[in-house]
Amino acid sequence: MNDNNKLNIVVLDGLVANPGDLSWEPLKEIGPTTVYDRTAPKELLERAKLAQVLLTNKTPINRETIEALPNLRYIGVLATGYNIIDTVAAREHGVVVTNVPAYSTASVAQLAIAHLLNITNGVAQYSSEVRSGAWTLCPDFSYISAPVMELAGKTMAVVGFGHIGSAVARIALALGMKVMAVTSKDAEQLPQGVEKASLEQA
Amino acid sequence: MNDNNKLNIVVLDGLVANPGDLSWEPLKEIGPTTVYDRTAPKELLERAKLAQVLLTNKTPINRETIEALPNLRYIGVLATGYNIIDTVAAREHGVVVTNVPAYSTASVAQLAIAHLLNITNGVAQYSSEVRSGAWTLCPDFSYISAPVMELAGKTMAVVGFGHIGSAVARIALALGMKVMAVTSKDAEQLPQGVEKASLEQA
Repeated sequence: MNDNNKLNIVVLDGLVANPGDLSWEPLKEIGPTTVYDRTAPKELLERAKLAQVLLTNKTPINRETIEALPNLRYIGVLATGYNIIDTVAAREHGVVVTNVPAYSTASVAQLAIAHLLNITNGVAQYSSEVRSGAWTLCPDFSYISAPVMELAGKTMAVVGFGHIGSAVARIALALGMKVMAVTSKDAEQLPQGVEKASLEQA
Repeated sequence: MNDNNKLNIVVLDGLVANPGDLSWEPLKEIGPTTVYDRTAPKELLERAKLAQVLLTNKTPINRETIEALPNLRYIGVLATGYNIIDTVAAREHGVVVTNVPAYSTASVAQLAIAHLLNITNGVAQYSSEVRSGAWTLCPDFSYISAPVMELAGKTMAVVGFGHIGSAVARIALALGMKVMAVTSKDAEQLPQGVEKASLEQA
């Protein structure tokens, strides 16, 4: 394949997906690749006009844009949500659209538990107080400035039991929690230790 | 049993074990109970002289004290570590000593993971920055002020695989981590997903 047959690739808003810790090189093997940090709506057509391939994270691509780009063959959404693409217009014009449906499962589950533990254990607050000498000055061997809650035995309600919901439930179970799932799945499909519940019960 | 046969109970340093959210009432059914918040060494003998039962958390009870208290029959340590008690002297004088060996397993495992997630996700820092408007002012849809690390696929080394170590390992596995255990246990005794390792490997 000579360079004339290579695909022209434009990344419209690459900064957040790759702030510098990833490499765009594999794309450049497919074709000439131009990466923009961000693209404003008024910059879009000029930047995209030669592209067969557009990669976007949050830059919207609507019907007018798709119809103004006759070379366009593929839109790759670098995220899960593809509501920024007019998929009906894309289909009408034979433009393939993809997204990345499950790249963040482990990260989002980890973040949900990190939020929970920030509330129950307040590590950052205690850490700062200990560093500033509050424990040293405390007359007791234990320094308590805010209640610490033990999660074991408590109940977590997970509303929606897809990839992320079940990953959060798995960690909650390992923490000794009871888990209720508000889900359209049957109770028999749920992992051991997870009980089906209604939103009112949860 | 009349009151003369009841046990005289003294709690030497009850404040940390019960800052007000627990009840001492069940003790009072066993015998007259006096609860001190803290006891300094020079206050100990005067407070303990009538006690058959001493409850202590961190107040040391040494050989001299045990030998000065002929009524003493039982020392209950309200914690796990019993290094504050001269157990040899207690045995010589027929004083029973107990501790509470595993009350904190779930709490300590939770705290270890809370520390880890405070480092990887910095929820408190992000929460404060978002509240102060940093995300609103950010030109990107994602606001990143410090790297966020995904734990899935990373390896945790657990040194010592008792109650707490295995509880921490269970949560780490649920977070998608690999776990290495530095332990005298045989590899076959370890839970699925946990590999035995030397301290050098870990």
